[in-house]
Amino acid sequence: MNMPAVKHPLDEATTLEVLEPGYCAAHTSAAYWNMNGPFGGVTTALMLRAAGLMVAPPMEVVALTVNFCAPQSPGRLFIAAREVRRGRWTSHVTLQMQADDATVVATATAVFGLRQPTFAKQLDRMPAVPPAKDLPSMAGDPRFAWLQQYDFRFVEGTLQLDGPADAPSQASAASMLWVRDRVARPLDRLSLVALCDSFFLRIFHLRQRLTLAGTVTLTAHLHASDEDLARQGERHVLGWADASVFTRNFFDQRAQLWGDDGTLLATSTQLAWFKE
Amino acid sequence: MNMPAVKHPLDEATTLEVLEPGYCAAHTSAAYWNMNGPFGGVTTALMLRAAGLMVAPPMEVVALTVNFCAPQSPGRLFIAAREVRRGRWTSHVTLQMQADDATVVATATAVFGLRQPTFAKQLDRMPAVPPAKDLPSMAGDPRFAWLQQYDFRFVEGTLQLDGPADAPSQASAASMLWVRDRVARPLDRLSLVALCDSFFLRIFHLRQRLTLAGTVTLTAHLHASDEDLARQGERHVLGWADASVFTRNFFDQRAQLWGDDGTLLATSTQLAWFKE
Repeated sequence: MNMPAVKHPLDEATTLEVLEPGYCAAHTSAAYWNMNGPFGGVTTALMLRAAGLMVAPPMEVVALTVNFCAPQSPGRLFIAAREVRRGRWTSHVTLQMQADDATVVATATAVFGLRQPTFAKQLDRMPAVPPAKDLPSMAGDPRFAWLQQYDFRFVEGTLQLDGPADAPSQASAASMLWVRDRVARPLDRLSLVALCDSFFLRIFHLRQRLTLAGTVTLTAHLHASDEDLARQGERHVLGWADASVFTRNFFDQRAQLWGDDGTLLATSTQLAWFKE
Repeated sequence: MNMPAVKHPLDEATTLEVLEPGYCAAHTSAAYWNMNGPFGGVTTALMLRAAGLMVAPPMEVVALTVNFCAPQSPGRLFIAAREVRRGRWTSHVTLQMQADDATVVATATAVFGLRQPTFAKQLDRMPAVPPAKDLPSMAGDPRFAWLQQYDFRFVEGTLQLDGPADAPSQASAASMLWVRDRVARPLDRLSLVALCDSFFLRIFHLRQRLTLAGTVTLTAHLHASDEDLARQGERHVLGWADASVFTRNFFDQRAQLWGDDGTLLATSTQLAWFKE
């Protein structure tokens, strides 16, 4: 007797129903709900999954930009994906996500590439940090369902979400942490792009409290090979995030994700809106 | 008698003819030609100019991603731009550029934002470097017309384009340089996004020679206010660029552009293809 397969929460949250070629339906995920909308990492992963339906292997995603256009309520989502250009080395897909009321809630562009052995060099080095097992797991917060889906273990740059409003800003917005899916799941490009958006908004770190803020656009560059992903498996990856400047309602944020053997798996940047 | 106004080369290269609302024609620029196609900074500036026709001030561009989809020959270009969502704080525009034969040569997404005074903090500091006037101007190279349109003054991380193929790689791909339009032009967001793509591909720096390579996608985040731009005027801005990893036909590249008073004007990332 076979046991029914239980879908991982991330796979459940990114389930697509293909309505016609290049047009899919999905549903916002309660498991990954954020304070006022879906966790952006799941939106990003949904876009990647929809784009992936348009481009056959061996091409693999190398870059993904997702723009978060509007607040979202729980409900159905519709994703239109179009491969606008296929060349010998790259394929370009553009995507648009709409809510049930036809509001465009997100747009995206995905670049796929044919990747082969080349000259290779990793210039950045993973910082020396204590292993994940030696660090405490961050406690969840009932206001953010999506937090329960990850195991965060901060090396440095922790944050409190409810610090006093009149406290001075921190000198740094940087943080370093081990992170993995709370329910173990072998790392793949789907979970990797979701992880690119798993870093708390840097304004929360700088201010040590929640402020009105949200990601407006996120760009992920994927460097990991299938072998890198398989080698990493279900273990924690090391994340680093920092910001350059907060000014006039917007700030930037950049991040790196490392395999625990020192392989740089992905780099990402985002621009976020804030009001304070 | 009024003298006829002479257009700056960048304005000439980014001239749009509006064929209908949201649909413009342009022409590739000989003045900014690269070895095998247009200089990507002009494609980026064209996309920004076309997007800007869709969104009225006071919203200003805060983020722009341009995907370079196909090689290009000299000729006419057609840009379709669509504002897919306007909210209270942001507006989202998607763009597609086609060549005369209908090939999609580039896609883009632009995010515009309403910017007002907020809490502000610049965490990154401009490095202390000698002023532009104390550094030599890089010599042009007849193979790259676009190089003639900029005045590059390297602080560190210079490059030769014709080093021996068997030379070992450099330990660093970083460079720091002052740069401005060769023909003086007050800095604005158009020239700023073009400058985001003015950094040589990091593979050339690492290998100290030209290799087969090209930018696939570029994302620019703009931080400068109108006042920051006006204060900078026609003087050189300081650019810094580096890379993290070169592997399997792709590498990343990140850059910062600073006003000479230490204001961070823009940050950008790109993913480039290479073959070696």
